[in-house]
Amino acid sequence: MSVYTPVSESQLAAWLKNYSVGALTALEPIAAGIENTNYFVTTAQGRYVLTLFERLAAAELPYYLELMAHLARHGVPCPAPIADLADRYLGGLNGKPAALVTRLSGSSIGNPGAAHCAELGALLARMHLSGQSYGGYLENPRGPKWWRGAAWQAQPFLDAPRAALLESELRFQAQQRFPDLPRGAVHADLFRDNALFDDGRITGVIDFYFAGVDCFVYDLAVCANDWCLVDPARDRRLQETRTLALLAGYRGVRPLQPGERDAWPVMLRAAALRFWLSRLLDKHLPRTGELVTVHDPEHFRDILELRAAPGSQPPWAD
Amino acid sequence: MSVYTPVSESQLAAWLKNYSVGALTALEPIAAGIENTNYFVTTAQGRYVLTLFERLAAAELPYYLELMAHLARHGVPCPAPIADLADRYLGGLNGKPAALVTRLSGSSIGNPGAAHCAELGALLARMHLSGQSYGGYLENPRGPKWWRGAAWQAQPFLDAPRAALLESELRFQAQQRFPDLPRGAVHADLFRDNALFDDGRITGVIDFYFAGVDCFVYDLAVCANDWCLVDPARDRRLQETRTLALLAGYRGVRPLQPGERDAWPVMLRAAALRFWLSRLLDKHLPRTGELVTVHDPEHFRDILELRAAPGSQPPWAD
Repeated sequence: MSVYTPVSESQLAAWLKNYSVGALTALEPIAAGIENTNYFVTTAQGRYVLTLFERLAAAELPYYLELMAHLARHGVPCPAPIADLADRYLGGLNGKPAALVTRLSGSSIGNPGAAHCAELGALLARMHLSGQSYGGYLENPRGPKWWRGAAWQAQPFLDAPRAALLESELRFQAQQRFPDLPRGAVHADLFRDNALFDDGRITGVIDFYFAGVDCFVYDLAVCANDWCLVDPARDRRLQETRTLALLAGYRGVRPLQPGERDAWPVMLRAAALRFWLSRLLDKHLPRTGELVTVHDPEHFRDILELRAAPGSQPPWAD
Repeated sequence: MSVYTPVSESQLAAWLKNYSVGALTALEPIAAGIENTNYFVTTAQGRYVLTLFERLAAAELPYYLELMAHLARHGVPCPAPIADLADRYLGGLNGKPAALVTRLSGSSIGNPGAAHCAELGALLARMHLSGQSYGGYLENPRGPKWWRGAAWQAQPFLDAPRAALLESELRFQAQQRFPDLPRGAVHADLFRDNALFDDGRITGVIDFYFAGVDCFVYDLAVCANDWCLVDPARDRRLQETRTLALLAGYRGVRPLQPGERDAWPVMLRAAALRFWLSRLLDKHLPRTGELVTVHDPEHFRDILELRAAPGSQPPWAD
């Protein structure tokens, strides 16, 4: 359930007079999503998604909306914010910051194959290259600084082995230094449900509300930890063919550097740590009024342990 | 024939490396159009139109490209320029200024009905409203200043009655003053072949390379003189039902003002004059190397005479 703030047809029809998208023909709440209120909106002109931002402060939203607009006008298939008649992407509706973005076609893939991973990798590289001319700056809001605070909040809920794993991983990550890795705007949450496919081709990337500036190879690691598992429920090692396809698709557009190869095992652990921590907080310190199915933190605890195991060698091809 | 500057697949594939639109899969020259070289371009990502600008100077192009980008991000279905990796809409290819824009679906309507005219009117009004926040400025390049120079060039090719008509119309137009008419960016060339429809709904407006700042009601007059004729080949009076549908569609989005009603008959004559003049120049003073079928200037001479005839009362409903 992701409608925290209801919007009626008559409220929306009146609000849409601020836009140039034609008259409202249909309004439908979207069940998926955990952060915001989302509706599918259809007008005489086209298909859109209306988002009412429930958590993000209005001050943070321009970074995301302008990033999506930037990527869209470079040809990256992502939701394009629609500007209102006052030329703003961000409006207000029923007391919440709100935005209208284009709705993309396609649907997400539960069990991706190597070809899907290659498509994803190529699009991720195109996003990274296009984003380099984006002027906005926001440090990855779930980066190392956030880990420390999140770990402090999660610690009381962990048993001894888990507390030790968390402690040791934070210490390990703090010792890693990759000052020269290529950085820029990264999606940072490109799980399977945030990519749309149609007939085997990737048609869209959605949900940019965890984006920020970080190492590009970190973004690849987030993807690999979700798209390339041998079996997400039972065997969370990286499946070689799909991992190599992801990397090959990426490298066909943006060559990877030796430093990124060196960082790859560390980034896979960092990406696992970040989602273990957020799932721990979602489980043990849920926000009030939230009706969301909590994802099991153990999934990412397991991934972290596997990636951190002595002798673990994630697939990589030069 | 509209390919003045050929582009090969290998040239384009290399050029597209400056963009984030994926690999080239097909390249097809476009036969229509008289001003520029156009190709349909298909990539792994989507469908685009490549334009090499043959006449317009690179200095004028940002006005048009930024206007299209502005309208597109407001939800107006028009070609959206794709920015390259250096974040520019305008590049260079084979010695010509060049741009890549999205390709719209739909096809143009030869014999529009009242419902098509209503769709067109509503979209025109949305374009006008969206364009009001556009920061660029270019006076209509085919406005009153241009008429005078064009008339001077065309005069030697006219017989006495036509020379008298032109002279008298220029004198009439010079006496008209509508200082308070709503103005802004207008398309100024929205003939039937520049609007795309799919299943009765308007899906796109193309060819913005005559756009500029002028009275909104002038833009409506350009449309009426092409979309609303009783019979374009035989009876060029305004057909009442379609003309009223065009106006009603427009007014449903942007109400018209009393001053615009007063200006309507004058603008219909101005719009006829502008195209009579350009067709005269295209016929009698063709640019070298041009292989274009010339449109008959007499079509618009006839429209001008009809609109200027004593007692002519173009349809208008308050």
